[in-house]
Amino acid sequence: MKLVTITYRGNRKVGAIRPELGRIWLLEQMLGRPVGDMLSIIPELDTIAKAARFAGEGIAVSEVRIEAPIPRPARNVFCVGKNYHEHAKEFARSGFDSSASSAADAIPAAPIVFTKAPECVIADGDDILYPTGVSDSLDYEAELAVVIGRGGKGIAKADAYGQVCGYTIVNDVTARDLQARHKQWFIGKSLDTFCPMGPWLVTADEVEPENLRVRCWVNDELRQDANTRDLIFDIPTLIETLSAGMTLQPGDVIATGTPVGVGIGFTPPKFLRPGDRVMIEIDGLGRLSNRVRQDKA
Amino acid sequence: MKLVTITYRGNRKVGAIRPELGRIWLLEQMLGRPVGDMLSIIPELDTIAKAARFAGEGIAVSEVRIEAPIPRPARNVFCVGKNYHEHAKEFARSGFDSSASSAADAIPAAPIVFTKAPECVIADGDDILYPTGVSDSLDYEAELAVVIGRGGKGIAKADAYGQVCGYTIVNDVTARDLQARHKQWFIGKSLDTFCPMGPWLVTADEVEPENLRVRCWVNDELRQDANTRDLIFDIPTLIETLSAGMTLQPGDVIATGTPVGVGIGFTPPKFLRPGDRVMIEIDGLGRLSNRVRQDKA
Repeated sequence: MKLVTITYRGNRKVGAIRPELGRIWLLEQMLGRPVGDMLSIIPELDTIAKAARFAGEGIAVSEVRIEAPIPRPARNVFCVGKNYHEHAKEFARSGFDSSASSAADAIPAAPIVFTKAPECVIADGDDILYPTGVSDSLDYEAELAVVIGRGGKGIAKADAYGQVCGYTIVNDVTARDLQARHKQWFIGKSLDTFCPMGPWLVTADEVEPENLRVRCWVNDELRQDANTRDLIFDIPTLIETLSAGMTLQPGDVIATGTPVGVGIGFTPPKFLRPGDRVMIEIDGLGRLSNRVRQDKA
Repeated sequence: MKLVTITYRGNRKVGAIRPELGRIWLLEQMLGRPVGDMLSIIPELDTIAKAARFAGEGIAVSEVRIEAPIPRPARNVFCVGKNYHEHAKEFARSGFDSSASSAADAIPAAPIVFTKAPECVIADGDDILYPTGVSDSLDYEAELAVVIGRGGKGIAKADAYGQVCGYTIVNDVTARDLQARHKQWFIGKSLDTFCPMGPWLVTADEVEPENLRVRCWVNDELRQDANTRDLIFDIPTLIETLSAGMTLQPGDVIATGTPVGVGIGFTPPKFLRPGDRVMIEIDGLGRLSNRVRQDKA
């Protein structure tokens, strides 16, 4: 099931979308009872997906505003750095990687995890604000994002997929100058609008997470084209690592890292400029498309 | 005014404490109207501090449980790394600093900011769980924490203190092995219970933040003894840097960094062990004391 957060007639609702039909069914009507927002229903997503029935004509996509599936995560989004071999190498070569002191250091020996502030989440179609005067080296990062369903602590690899309720796309937008200057990456990753997410959440039963083609275009140029089978640290390893000492919460979002082809992988770097459009497509998860717009100086 | 979050007769309340009297007055009684939790009243803290009147005998501290002033921040706690010269040097020397590739790199040229998950906040008196099997190199970090009142974006240094509603103490507990292994510090900083905070929030009018003695004892040994005047990046610089591209929110917590004297500053390192007690005192902000307790293996 593809679950979508929408604003419909002025109210925030959760629906099930059939993108091929361009129509959305309100979850409250499918279930015949009120439902809360996406975060609140995540712990019971299994039950909901089984009980929900498509009936009637639904609502045309054109009648709603599609929001990010989790418009405001309950805490920072977890992001994994350098989790594809070829990207790890391009990043180390770029001179922007404060986590590696030499080329020999390029491939991480353990997952590198930083966070993005939850307020930087924006929806498919929203603009990424170009932060004039703050950064002039904006970059895109197409990523498969995992959404935690039940959560917990000390989750073994073998049990990890049982904790995942679904998947979506994240664009881990990055200010490369700030990422390098501040050593720890939080600041360069957390400018307002730097976390496009969506367009919807696809429940885990519909996704083969270890074999998904991930592509990213800037305007009409294909920049990233990889497969999640090439993750250095796979999803069970990430969940085991994160939950070893920290309790994972329902609704936690883990962006699993970006493949080769980001702007700083090119010589000279191809940074994003106002007017550029970044579009990410992942098999079965839809397309996430956002334009870069000049922020007020 | 010293504002304290308490559990009193089974209900979570906000009160004003007079530590010298050992008594607490409920804010709702001082104002003659219902008040929400600490996070919800932060935007109106100026008004509240002016309107609140101490009347009657209040409640004895022994009748309540003191919670962390903000028991669950709305997003991750922002933390500043290596923000005192002598600590930056001891950290670089220790071999655990993934942000510096040489001793020449020890002093940061720009603020280093990472985050801690909001669920790791615990109160004065709560136990720090020793994460057996996950880390064996626990360390303490005594820090002055700034709480943002109004927030906003693009805050200039000259206006920064106007955005601060108060101060408290944070112990930025750290798993040094995880901090080094994962390069980015989030994992090593965010194990459950790794953010003791409190004992209360002191409103900005009562605090001279640039001249506060910060001390930390482990059991009876004084380990850290410094003054906030020695911060490398002062509070206005931190607020200007963080808010340049990211909107600060009311209730955001910024832990400003720890001075020299952490466990890894010693040879051999003095890591925390189950049974140890860490006590932090900052002028005018009270004492934050937490024992380390063996977690279930």
